Amino acid sequence: MLITRTIAETRTAIAHARAQGKRIGFVPTMGYLHEGHLQLIDIARQHSDFVVVSIFVNPTQFGPHEDFASYPRDFERDRTLCEARGADLIFAPEVSEMYPERSLITFQIEKLADRLCGARRPGHFNGVVLVVSKLFNIVQPDIAVFGQKDAQQLIIIKRLVQDLNFPVRIISAPTVREPDGLAMSSRNVYLSPTQRAQSTVLYKSLQRAKTLIESGERDAKRVIAEMERVIATASEAKIDYIEIVRVSDLQPIEKLDGLVLIALAVYFGKARLIDNIILNVSDRAVREIAALP
Amino acid sequence: MLITRTIAETRTAIAHARAQGKRIGFVPTMGYLHEGHLQLIDIARQHSDFVVVSIFVNPTQFGPHEDFASYPRDFERDRTLCEARGADLIFAPEVSEMYPERSLITFQIEKLADRLCGARRPGHFNGVVLVVSKLFNIVQPDIAVFGQKDAQQLIIIKRLVQDLNFPVRIISAPTVREPDGLAMSSRNVYLSPTQRAQSTVLYKSLQRAKTLIESGERDAKRVIAEMERVIATASEAKIDYIEIVRVSDLQPIEKLDGLVLIALAVYFGKARLIDNIILNVSDRAVREIAALP
Repeated sequence: MLITRTIAETRTAIAHARAQGKRIGFVPTMGYLHEGHLQLIDIARQHSDFVVVSIFVNPTQFGPHEDFASYPRDFERDRTLCEARGADLIFAPEVSEMYPERSLITFQIEKLADRLCGARRPGHFNGVVLVVSKLFNIVQPDIAVFGQKDAQQLIIIKRLVQDLNFPVRIISAPTVREPDGLAMSSRNVYLSPTQRAQSTVLYKSLQRAKTLIESGERDAKRVIAEMERVIATASEAKIDYIEIVRVSDLQPIEKLDGLVLIALAVYFGKARLIDNIILNVSDRAVREIAALP
Repeated sequence: MLITRTIAETRTAIAHARAQGKRIGFVPTMGYLHEGHLQLIDIARQHSDFVVVSIFVNPTQFGPHEDFASYPRDFERDRTLCEARGADLIFAPEVSEMYPERSLITFQIEKLADRLCGARRPGHFNGVVLVVSKLFNIVQPDIAVFGQKDAQQLIIIKRLVQDLNFPVRIISAPTVREPDGLAMSSRNVYLSPTQRAQSTVLYKSLQRAKTLIESGERDAKRVIAEMERVIATASEAKIDYIEIVRVSDLQPIEKLDGLVLIALAVYFGKARLIDNIILNVSDRAVREIAALP
């Protein structure tokens, strides 16, 4: 497995693989890898011949009071995990390599960043779209894999690729959970033992929403109220948001119909955890979509 | 010479050329080609093996009261000229092919679009950067050629490539002029015979500025005042702007030093013409830069 720190050596290594006729797969990460990331690598390997994993805690997607400085980092551990999982190259640049100067060209996102995490983290998705565009142009992958755990990010990246005609296919990967249902996240290390025990209410509330909808409920407000009741059973939980939006444009809906995203963000102390499910709702049936097409 | 109308067939044709080991050159245009465009094709041929010319009047770079509808178009003439000049492929999509839906992902440009044409045409360069990004992702050229006649556009595109790490080298081409000095432009067809005769004041004013600076003048205000006097000799000329800015960030300077862009926009009736020169100014010498490195 190769490790590169500069854009130039990354391009050279990938050009070499491409010249051998290999299809390039890409998994962008912020490191501190968990099983969720590793399954993204598995999926990338299924769809390509040379898997590039980027490890870069991207400053432009963190707000001034967010956890950029304290975000967990452990390159040696990440390296071992990537190698064991069959990655071919880790691109782990310094901030100065990715941003030698402040970018004067940045992105605007209409509609898709108005709600959910976009509303709570102003500029977050603009920074995500900037770094992902840069990484796409550096790696030039044939396919790239993103986790559905970050559903809003996934939907925005799919739209970025569509609107800007990036020559890459986005593959979405199901959320990977701990045995008790908690979605895997690098930020789970922030949880105290009590918080960790209580954090299962996130997935429980999503499951409760699904059950309600399966039994015929179509009113978004009533589903959300029931989810709030489930989360309120955790004394340390502080709800940031619970929203139900259309997958197509991430705008809120009152009456559930079609592809809907049920998403939440909840604080446990300083840890802000997110989770979601995507459901295809019709009059007669409700189907969970673990990986958007 | 191939002609493509869809993104898919364009990608297929270019992939075929690339598979033969050819380097891809790219000349994006809005059509109604003149000798200036054709020299961009010449330069592209010098640096690549397969030259793609796009012909697309891009609606997102026109303001609501600008000349999108009336912008001159003549595909058959353009086709003949491209073929004669040795282009390998014309990509001429419909608006619906490039923008099947309104783009929700768009660009912001800091500093570089604040002055000159950017100040007079709000949103213009955002639309330019959007369409050029899309075209880069469709054509995936090794090199792309832009005319220095559109100096602000050239500088913004160079920064786009730098900030977003587009894997393309931008080559700038000198402004091509009529024998009397008027910079070639598709919009010159808007000029009446009287306006055409008077339009030579644009280049005369730039030459006068250069002579002044060569003889020691370093005060931007005094240079601009002298240019205004030259342009005032044309009765039908109405100055939109005359500005002197740093090439590095397109911000105005008072005292000329280093790489400076002297740029102007002047109305003759409904025709808005632009022109510029770039000078490298030091204490001892003044050198004109016909093509930025």
